[in-house]
Amino acid sequence: MMRTLEDIVHYAMTCFVNAPGSHDWEHTRRVRNLCRHIGTVEGADLEVLEIAAYLHDIGRAGEQPAKGTRCHAEKGAQMAGEILKGYSIGGAKRENIIHCIRNHRFRGKQLPETLEAKVLFDADKLDAIGAVGIARAYLFAGELGAKLHNPDMRPEDTEAYSREDTGYREYRLKLSKIKERMLTREGRRMAEERHRFMEAFFERFVSEYEGGR
Amino acid sequence: MMRTLEDIVHYAMTCFVNAPGSHDWEHTRRVRNLCRHIGTVEGADLEVLEIAAYLHDIGRAGEQPAKGTRCHAEKGAQMAGEILKGYSIGGAKRENIIHCIRNHRFRGKQLPETLEAKVLFDADKLDAIGAVGIARAYLFAGELGAKLHNPDMRPEDTEAYSREDTGYREYRLKLSKIKERMLTREGRRMAEERHRFMEAFFERFVSEYEGGR
Repeated sequence: MMRTLEDIVHYAMTCFVNAPGSHDWEHTRRVRNLCRHIGTVEGADLEVLEIAAYLHDIGRAGEQPAKGTRCHAEKGAQMAGEILKGYSIGGAKRENIIHCIRNHRFRGKQLPETLEAKVLFDADKLDAIGAVGIARAYLFAGELGAKLHNPDMRPEDTEAYSREDTGYREYRLKLSKIKERMLTREGRRMAEERHRFMEAFFERFVSEYEGGR
Repeated sequence: MMRTLEDIVHYAMTCFVNAPGSHDWEHTRRVRNLCRHIGTVEGADLEVLEIAAYLHDIGRAGEQPAKGTRCHAEKGAQMAGEILKGYSIGGAKRENIIHCIRNHRFRGKQLPETLEAKVLFDADKLDAIGAVGIARAYLFAGELGAKLHNPDMRPEDTEAYSREDTGYREYRLKLSKIKERMLTREGRRMAEERHRFMEAFFERFVSEYEGGR
């Protein structure tokens, strides 16, 4: 029975015991820190946000990383509904937490409706870009046994994710578009700054790769 | 029998068929391009450099990536000696190529003595730093199943390379020191520029990791 926030945090941590480095408990911790910052600036309900952030990826437990995120948000929302039955919190807040988790995916069909769901969505996307996003993209490529770079391949050439995949392709195909999808003002501001850093990184990467600089 | 440069390139390529992305044939190609640039600026023998660059990592074939580079330079030098027996090139040049390969390691006991060996040493180190170096460090961490970051660990805490390893630790322990080891003027100039870029990257990485920016 989840009686305290500590119970919830402890439960969520145990879901990540065998998670790969690119999607591990540390990602959840960073998203929680970003939620606290953006949520404060935007005036969101921090109690709802804190719990939603800690639980947002628990549906990944048991998924293969290469299979991606097909249903982890829906599965996580269902798990959260069960977990929160024993937790002392108002019904509307509980529903909001579940809504946050169900709608945090980048490729999700339904967009977040509440402010808290928008903040969680933005925080989760921010952790995929900037310097952390670059490091995660290459770590993930390494987990898949991928190449460092594949200059002959156009971004649209193959299905994600294969050994032909690279961090640069992930940037071109997905990470470079994230800043357009932000749903809060503070999230957008941070995304634009992180985006500029990624642009500078990959411009240098490509020119170093060709033997320049 | 290796009669032409094409024969040598083709032989070298076949040594990398199952190489991991962090130490594959593309690394050799980038080192060759860097050798051509630095060698031209420094006035080195480009024929010697070209062959030495293509062959410098052939001794890695069959090595496990996690075992590191204990003897690949010595092994590669021996392999090159055999390969070059049938190649039409002067004896001094042949000896120089073998010297280049034997002494290109960062942790090698013997330092490069000839200009060409210094250029190859610098080119190989340059490919470990800058934006390419950052990407390679995280790709390598992913290949080992390592974490994205381990803020509680001091760089000196564990043996390289374990799942506790991270790109940041690789930077602190090794990559940040490379610029001090350069042996040519042009190599040093490029290393300083790549070093500054890495500093900016990791400063941002750590502050993003903590939830800022």
